[in-house]
Amino acid sequence: MEIIVEPPSNFSFSELRGRGVWRYKKLIAGEYKRLISINEGGTPLIRSCNINKNLYMKYEGVNPTGSFKDRGMTVAVSSAVSNGYKTVIAASTGNTAAAAAAYAARAGIKSFIVLPKGKVALGKLAQSILYGTTIMEVEGSFDVAMGAVMKLYKDLGIVYPLNSFNPWRLEGQKTIAFEITEDIGVPDAVIVPVGNAGNIYAIWKGFTELVKAGVTDKIPRMIGVQAEGASPIARAFIEGSQSPVFTDSPETVATAIRIGKPVNWRKAMKAVRESNGTMLVVSDNEILKAQRDLARKEGVGAEPASAASLAGYYKALDRKIISPDEKVAIILTGHSLKDPDSMGKAETKRILINPSFIEKIILEEVNDHNSS
Amino acid sequence: MEIIVEPPSNFSFSELRGRGVWRYKKLIAGEYKRLISINEGGTPLIRSCNINKNLYMKYEGVNPTGSFKDRGMTVAVSSAVSNGYKTVIAASTGNTAAAAAAYAARAGIKSFIVLPKGKVALGKLAQSILYGTTIMEVEGSFDVAMGAVMKLYKDLGIVYPLNSFNPWRLEGQKTIAFEITEDIGVPDAVIVPVGNAGNIYAIWKGFTELVKAGVTDKIPRMIGVQAEGASPIARAFIEGSQSPVFTDSPETVATAIRIGKPVNWRKAMKAVRESNGTMLVVSDNEILKAQRDLARKEGVGAEPASAASLAGYYKALDRKIISPDEKVAIILTGHSLKDPDSMGKAETKRILINPSFIEKIILEEVNDHNSS
Repeated sequence: MEIIVEPPSNFSFSELRGRGVWRYKKLIAGEYKRLISINEGGTPLIRSCNINKNLYMKYEGVNPTGSFKDRGMTVAVSSAVSNGYKTVIAASTGNTAAAAAAYAARAGIKSFIVLPKGKVALGKLAQSILYGTTIMEVEGSFDVAMGAVMKLYKDLGIVYPLNSFNPWRLEGQKTIAFEITEDIGVPDAVIVPVGNAGNIYAIWKGFTELVKAGVTDKIPRMIGVQAEGASPIARAFIEGSQSPVFTDSPETVATAIRIGKPVNWRKAMKAVRESNGTMLVVSDNEILKAQRDLARKEGVGAEPASAASLAGYYKALDRKIISPDEKVAIILTGHSLKDPDSMGKAETKRILINPSFIEKIILEEVNDHNSS
Repeated sequence: MEIIVEPPSNFSFSELRGRGVWRYKKLIAGEYKRLISINEGGTPLIRSCNINKNLYMKYEGVNPTGSFKDRGMTVAVSSAVSNGYKTVIAASTGNTAAAAAAYAARAGIKSFIVLPKGKVALGKLAQSILYGTTIMEVEGSFDVAMGAVMKLYKDLGIVYPLNSFNPWRLEGQKTIAFEITEDIGVPDAVIVPVGNAGNIYAIWKGFTELVKAGVTDKIPRMIGVQAEGASPIARAFIEGSQSPVFTDSPETVATAIRIGKPVNWRKAMKAVRESNGTMLVVSDNEILKAQRDLARKEGVGAEPASAASLAGYYKALDRKIISPDEKVAIILTGHSLKDPDSMGKAETKRILINPSFIEKIILEEVNDHNSS
């Protein structure tokens, strides 16, 4: 399902008030009796100091639950409660689950997270647990369970599904395009990590609606980045195929994009093709190096999936898909705090010091640093 | 050391531009050749939906490194680089260390985190490690080591200390008062978790400067909250003493305020006394319950130390220190993602489901929820 919006013509940002996703209510489809918001969106677009001054980092990690998923959840959960739903459900173990649980809590409605039994460590769910979700572990066929959930939604109107196929989530996510445009105008390219593939489409959709609204006549090249071990859409691009190469066992350190069968692949391919963009593949090593560069050169903490976009930027520069003087926005989808393991794995210098020698050692270290 | 600021008279917020800490540059002491910023501050003041509509939550967890420490670090590190320092140092294991490492990285200067050897698990330092700090573990007397560091600062001007006694950090933190005032005017009370005790003073200082600047004539009652096992200042209040009751072995789940000898205790007592406020003690159980309430009633994820402020709010209501119709701001100092262990410990409902029965179980759960 695709939501087609007819934006107001002769629209101008200057008529808007407030900050965050709902600043753009006029451009978001749907009618809402009640808005469920935790002040999501309005995230900073941080200009690079030390990588390239034409690079801008859209820091989605500072959303309330720590990822861009909040933008979609505020719209989807507002839609759910405005339509009378009192229960939401998501089959997810990560950022989507946390966002679903938080927005349901704020709305005062019930949330379920559905998991295949025994496949997910409880630690991965700690954030959703704090927000008070109920965990349903399905024994046996997960597809049968999800089929039953969809039946409760379609036939009885009882549970509202917040999975990636939910098109209202993309209505919220498209506001990333609006915020970037308000901050720096339309960039030459936007680089997005691709997992279930909704976000790259949502952002592209945002830019196309700004063109329809008469705000701009430019669409940035949309560049999607996938991890080597989870690259069904990027492989299709490389092989010139019209359809993705699904995998049952995706593998990458970038857990937030470890998806073998992206739900929104058609939408993503459309966004990339129509914007003259491309798809890139990056390795786990490239991702982890990019994660350290973000933290150590820019002071910006991002989870590995987010860092895939910087890894993609490096690759695009290398292949001359992007020139260093083009204005580029990379989407840092989630906070480094989302993945404590990956933070701790970065190598670091540790020195054991006898207090009597601390002056000498600091002086040596300072000299080392200055000469390096 | 206390920084006295003479704010411009007849100042008005309407003359300011931009967002975040540096929006208030005019009100921040010091001259800066270079600003080191990661877009800190400008955090949302979230109005309570389900606890009390006169309660507002200042959500500092959405700062770049996940805590209010970023506000102070942007000022202190800008001051360091503007004065030619190329190395900063902090003796901290938690939020201060992460913020110091991030701002040093952004500035392109070196950071050291100094620890007593063998006392801190490496996992606690994962965030600082990602930002590329160098860890110095001191064998033997920590005080001797810190003495040597202070000598390098005072005599040679080589390393710049970012510890809690650094008064420039408080200059940044006081902007919390400015933002609250811009959002809702001056509240009746502000409730702040108290560890090293700088923040409650900094926020109070912000309000007093707004009075001097002619923006308002009201100062909120400043209410400090300490955890039972780490309550040297609150105990002094309870016992009517002029000086705190230090402890060598503070203990609480709220690690960010697990401080036995608060550096800024004099400043904190001044802020509380002069504002007609008070200090409260809350138990670990009250803190953890408040943390769950924030997440499950409001959709706001905060670390235990932050939740101490909601626990203090409940206690203040109970003791009629605050009335339910007073406008109160609580400071949620850090994100729940800062403390994954505490999130996972919240109890939750887990249901093992045979897929054939999922419809039945969801219907039962929905009915339970609606009738509860």
